Amino acid sequence: MKKIINFSRGVPDPECFPVDDLVAATESALRKNAKNILQYGPAAGYASLREFIGRWFDRDSSEVMIGNGSLELFGFICEAYLQPGDVVFVESPTYDRAITILKKHGVRIVGIDVNENGIDLAAFQAALKKHTPKLVYLIPDFQNPTGVCTSLEAREQIVKWSKSLGFLIVEDGPYGFLRYFGDDIPSIYSLAPEQTIHLSSFTKLISPGVRIGFLLGSQDRVKQVASVAESHYITPGYFAQGVIAEWCSKGHLPEQLERLKKMYAPRLATCVAALDRHLPGKMIGRPQGGFFASIRLDVGIEEGSLIQAAREEGLILSSGDAFFVNASRYRFVRLPFCALQHDEILEGIKRLAVVVQKLSPPAIGKGAKQSVAAT
Amino acid sequence: MKKIINFSRGVPDPECFPVDDLVAATESALRKNAKNILQYGPAAGYASLREFIGRWFDRDSSEVMIGNGSLELFGFICEAYLQPGDVVFVESPTYDRAITILKKHGVRIVGIDVNENGIDLAAFQAALKKHTPKLVYLIPDFQNPTGVCTSLEAREQIVKWSKSLGFLIVEDGPYGFLRYFGDDIPSIYSLAPEQTIHLSSFTKLISPGVRIGFLLGSQDRVKQVASVAESHYITPGYFAQGVIAEWCSKGHLPEQLERLKKMYAPRLATCVAALDRHLPGKMIGRPQGGFFASIRLDVGIEEGSLIQAAREEGLILSSGDAFFVNASRYRFVRLPFCALQHDEILEGIKRLAVVVQKLSPPAIGKGAKQSVAAT
Repeated sequence: MKKIINFSRGVPDPECFPVDDLVAATESALRKNAKNILQYGPAAGYASLREFIGRWFDRDSSEVMIGNGSLELFGFICEAYLQPGDVVFVESPTYDRAITILKKHGVRIVGIDVNENGIDLAAFQAALKKHTPKLVYLIPDFQNPTGVCTSLEAREQIVKWSKSLGFLIVEDGPYGFLRYFGDDIPSIYSLAPEQTIHLSSFTKLISPGVRIGFLLGSQDRVKQVASVAESHYITPGYFAQGVIAEWCSKGHLPEQLERLKKMYAPRLATCVAALDRHLPGKMIGRPQGGFFASIRLDVGIEEGSLIQAAREEGLILSSGDAFFVNASRYRFVRLPFCALQHDEILEGIKRLAVVVQKLSPPAIGKGAKQSVAAT
Repeated sequence: MKKIINFSRGVPDPECFPVDDLVAATESALRKNAKNILQYGPAAGYASLREFIGRWFDRDSSEVMIGNGSLELFGFICEAYLQPGDVVFVESPTYDRAITILKKHGVRIVGIDVNENGIDLAAFQAALKKHTPKLVYLIPDFQNPTGVCTSLEAREQIVKWSKSLGFLIVEDGPYGFLRYFGDDIPSIYSLAPEQTIHLSSFTKLISPGVRIGFLLGSQDRVKQVASVAESHYITPGYFAQGVIAEWCSKGHLPEQLERLKKMYAPRLATCVAALDRHLPGKMIGRPQGGFFASIRLDVGIEEGSLIQAAREEGLILSSGDAFFVNASRYRFVRLPFCALQHDEILEGIKRLAVVVQKLSPPAIGKGAKQSVAAT
């Protein structure tokens, strides 16, 4: 029996959870603030944590709202600003759970291709000729699922379109602080705070289980989205927010980010090198941070067969199709590397290459298939 | 300046938060289970806490789902089972936030009068002649906002109707364990687990800030509602659930319930005695537990004037109208007594009586107004 390698889960490595410091922060937070953090409170989130996040992003705390994870906040944004039939642009592929949320709101979702430099501006412009979006949902940094970053040029152009056409940009940025190589690119929110709601989260930086996502946006938008949140759950998880506020106030966040980068950077390097070696030319872009690398295969490789064949090799993959609004023109595989050890990443990608080789259409039919894939 | 007395907030007294035991439980939970409670996990909730709740209610843990508060779980139930246009019966008055959730789902809400014995069976039967509900939402124990309990006879009759007509009963029971006087009445869920989803929460028993609500229902219903929850937030607040699971496993819940009853019972007694003395005949039923007493006044007393006049006396009241789906035939005031001290309750009700006296229609017009109120 081969050891199972799970290349399906975009989760942090539990080794990086700051357990000792959370124990200390909980005791301290409960001793000081039990009457606040164990009680009901404003739906926009626990005041001290809003203040910390405000300072972190160099904005006022009234421009910060905290909820039980950023996915749910995205749902509240949709409820606040979208009506059935509205058009929403997303990257293609994009975060599958964001697609699910958008579908619940009955909007028309238009996917814009992502290439090695993030969202494809020509495709965006072509889509603008057919549709006027009400909202554009983007993951510009180390995108889920591709791992690529959208170029500064594209960010600036999208901001221009947002200003002239009036659409709201929702920038989902949970990986923005996890750059392992290369230089930071300014967030869309920093370029155009009035056009943008920036979503982020402590899930990838501290722990998913504390369930703390947050958004930054104008005071009015914070009030509008908080009002939706209150109608759903009155108050978000103040106990966890109080603990994390205390943990942050002790200055742990910078050291935690360094710890994560030190843990994840070599895993990404291993993943990229293994893909270069075993699946040359298949990687989409060259990820420099975040949780994901990804590959693009011939659409002739049927997804169900790929997942099944991988499973037979002891390799667990998730559906690539789920990240597309419409049928993809290529076969997509997301490779989350953060929770895997060096040898698992190497072995996993070797197995993936074997499976791809096995399933690839014979050379004689390849030309025809590829031309279909390129239309 | 009179001291402000806030009779508007249905919140627990922070004095009852078990701070020391939560500090100990957090340390213990993080030391033992950090890899689970700080990570993502199944949307139905943290396994150990599901098991505890299952034992507590004498059901299997697969019949338990845990979320970030029971209000949000009610929203997920609506998403799982209701379509726009479906008919839902609720008590009239009922929990205002449940009305908001139902309105979001575009259903037709039918209010059934509540009297001193809870929901009025004759009114329920009359409504059944006009409508076939898909779902009936009830708060049979120490109802929010009236404080009354629905009789066993009525519970049994509603179960019979549910079986013959096929509607789902959602029994919201967060106050069920907070009986200070009299004898327990079996929950509807215990009478008919197949017809019922029982909602409850640790909000009133431990702390609102931990944001832990839960439901009990058939395995199929738990799966269906958990699937909705997953689509919204992937995982609920596992950190808080892990802490509360540890706290519960140490046997703290029974002692906490005793502590709450000891604190709240005399406050209820004070409240009821003060209403008997200062506003005789106005109380709806005679509450024996929970968080609320309530009064019924002549509809001739205009709500805005009542709240304003009370504020001038240093007494904060919330809107009574918000608890009704349609216009109420009487002026309703909810009186949450748990977070107030003995002397605040006494003084608050004295002030309320003064305000009511001041605003009451003159005797000459009273007969006419009352006959309108009774139609």
